[in-house]
Amino acid sequence: MNTNVHVFSVSPFLTLTEKVTVEYLCQLFFGGESVKHGGFTCPGGSLANLTAMITARSILFPETKAKGIQDHKFRLFTSEHAHYSFHKAAMTAGMGIETVISVGVNSQGQMESEKLRQAFLDSKLRNETPFFVCATAGTTVYGSFDPLNEIADICEEFGLWLHVDASWGGGVIFSPKHLHKLTGIKRANSITFNPQKMLGVPLLCSFLLLRDKSVLAANSLDNASYLFHEENEYDNGSQTLWCSRLGDAFKFWFSLQWYGEVGYCRRVEHAFEMVTLFYENMLKNSNFEVLLKPACLQVCFYYRPSEDGERNTKMTHGIVQVLRNERKYFIDYAQGKRGDFFRIVIQNPLTTEVFIDEVIKEIDEAGKKLLHTL
Amino acid sequence: MNTNVHVFSVSPFLTLTEKVTVEYLCQLFFGGESVKHGGFTCPGGSLANLTAMITARSILFPETKAKGIQDHKFRLFTSEHAHYSFHKAAMTAGMGIETVISVGVNSQGQMESEKLRQAFLDSKLRNETPFFVCATAGTTVYGSFDPLNEIADICEEFGLWLHVDASWGGGVIFSPKHLHKLTGIKRANSITFNPQKMLGVPLLCSFLLLRDKSVLAANSLDNASYLFHEENEYDNGSQTLWCSRLGDAFKFWFSLQWYGEVGYCRRVEHAFEMVTLFYENMLKNSNFEVLLKPACLQVCFYYRPSEDGERNTKMTHGIVQVLRNERKYFIDYAQGKRGDFFRIVIQNPLTTEVFIDEVIKEIDEAGKKLLHTL
Repeated sequence: MNTNVHVFSVSPFLTLTEKVTVEYLCQLFFGGESVKHGGFTCPGGSLANLTAMITARSILFPETKAKGIQDHKFRLFTSEHAHYSFHKAAMTAGMGIETVISVGVNSQGQMESEKLRQAFLDSKLRNETPFFVCATAGTTVYGSFDPLNEIADICEEFGLWLHVDASWGGGVIFSPKHLHKLTGIKRANSITFNPQKMLGVPLLCSFLLLRDKSVLAANSLDNASYLFHEENEYDNGSQTLWCSRLGDAFKFWFSLQWYGEVGYCRRVEHAFEMVTLFYENMLKNSNFEVLLKPACLQVCFYYRPSEDGERNTKMTHGIVQVLRNERKYFIDYAQGKRGDFFRIVIQNPLTTEVFIDEVIKEIDEAGKKLLHTL
Repeated sequence: MNTNVHVFSVSPFLTLTEKVTVEYLCQLFFGGESVKHGGFTCPGGSLANLTAMITARSILFPETKAKGIQDHKFRLFTSEHAHYSFHKAAMTAGMGIETVISVGVNSQGQMESEKLRQAFLDSKLRNETPFFVCATAGTTVYGSFDPLNEIADICEEFGLWLHVDASWGGGVIFSPKHLHKLTGIKRANSITFNPQKMLGVPLLCSFLLLRDKSVLAANSLDNASYLFHEENEYDNGSQTLWCSRLGDAFKFWFSLQWYGEVGYCRRVEHAFEMVTLFYENMLKNSNFEVLLKPACLQVCFYYRPSEDGERNTKMTHGIVQVLRNERKYFIDYAQGKRGDFFRIVIQNPLTTEVFIDEVIKEIDEAGKKLLHTL
């Protein structure tokens, strides 16, 4: 396993494992003419997202590869709730953080497609060069799924590259019950999908999937002849933005042999059932205020919030600290407009109803004690 | 081990392992005021090199972080023999491949510092913005070490960022006998070092070392509050250009506990002894023409070369193929001005004199047979 999948000759088995796994995933996400699909693993979703953006730039503006971005005022669009990696990507790519236009979301944390259209038109009026849209399937904080078909319509209309960051939410592809959240994903040009997240495959395991693999040639260079000896579609290293890579696809491939699609379906649906239970039990207890009905596996909530954001933050941090100090639960939180709120992610297949009742009870008890001190 | 070193709270032990390992390596390479040094692991040397370049750009031209490269005509310098990752980095960074100015090398494959000075002055005359020099300690094909002190003088004189790509050759730091090849490396602003290469640490294990860790703040963003909750020098994820990372430092740390500096020294010096033997035995056989006296662990040679480059390439490929077909040896080759030549890297600590004699004999015999057919 300790070998490098940059060239076929060094690791034939792992290279082929990656190839069949990518083909399988592309078929799952894109359907249709599988022979055209392609992709590879990346060390994490952020680098998969960066690669998608660079590939789009090199394809739509081929001269940038040799000459750089020059006078182009590139702009990319993603929602306010998208992963922060696009800001890192824009900085890395020499376009600057301000290149990223954050499109507003609705109360459910989904990108509003009409706002995307408007943001695009405004950008054009400013003589900028919008070229890339990233929709999110499963946002980091709320777990929201952007309306992919509506966004794809806009991308097709204006010739924009559509990337879907399904790092987190892509796992629902295995659940007939939740699959509909990904409707429209097959219209993407590129997709990031991380089996290291919802499916529990060991880190790192992240895929960049391309609807048309021929675009990957955009990243290849011709000055590494010592390594890439001839045109070889199996030498993926020439298409990545880096070189050495582990055979991360093997971890997903092996996991898939073991669990099968049915096993993944059960894993995903069980997690959703637990989240629903968590959510419904919280609704029954007036001490909790849940921010939204979970779209994915996150539950975001306050404990007895007031109008005072600072007080809410104190309450959240206080309860988190109590449970950590008691070595009971390690709960995380996120920033909201009314102060920091709890953000619990349930995806462990061993999570039970009893466990959920217990967590809610413990938070409630810690909260009650803290109420007196705030 | 299957955890993420992006934030301290998720993997305290691995984060601390990374911290002490980085401090140890910085002390080794930079010496001096260790409290200022810093760095982290990257998934491979290419991404470490990219990160060094982006960090340099963000530090020297802070406005590029938000605004992009705009009117700057950035230029970076590295030798003709440097790793191809700088071309990928320049493409990724939106500066374009043409940004990379390849400085000429001498017959030993070392960057000529006078040519670097001239290339810099020419670039200034063209109103460009040279900002970054990458010297190589152990080039990929020849294994050459660039004259670091001479290059550092030029960088200091003109205010250029000096990066040393010691991915391959950095391992000689453990050998008092070969250490001198790195003389001047402590003057670098940043260093890439891959224990996954000469030291045999399992892939991936690559470090980016910074003389002054405060520069790493250049890569941080302020829009990932859900993850990075407060200013925390242990949350390295905010300083990398990506997010999730494995605890790769552990592999080096553990290996160092096992082998110790003495063990690494013996490993490195044994490899050099075997390379010297290989080289000297080849010199004794007039069928071989060795391209240069090995500076590192590569031996580059032709078998009975003629003036006809195409014939030399055919001979090299032919012998490689014969030995592969016979399932004997898997030898690689590289491109040269007189056609493709053999490029053998010896670093396995189990390599013996007997093995070396055998390899030379087998190549010679395969070559003799092929001579009749060409």
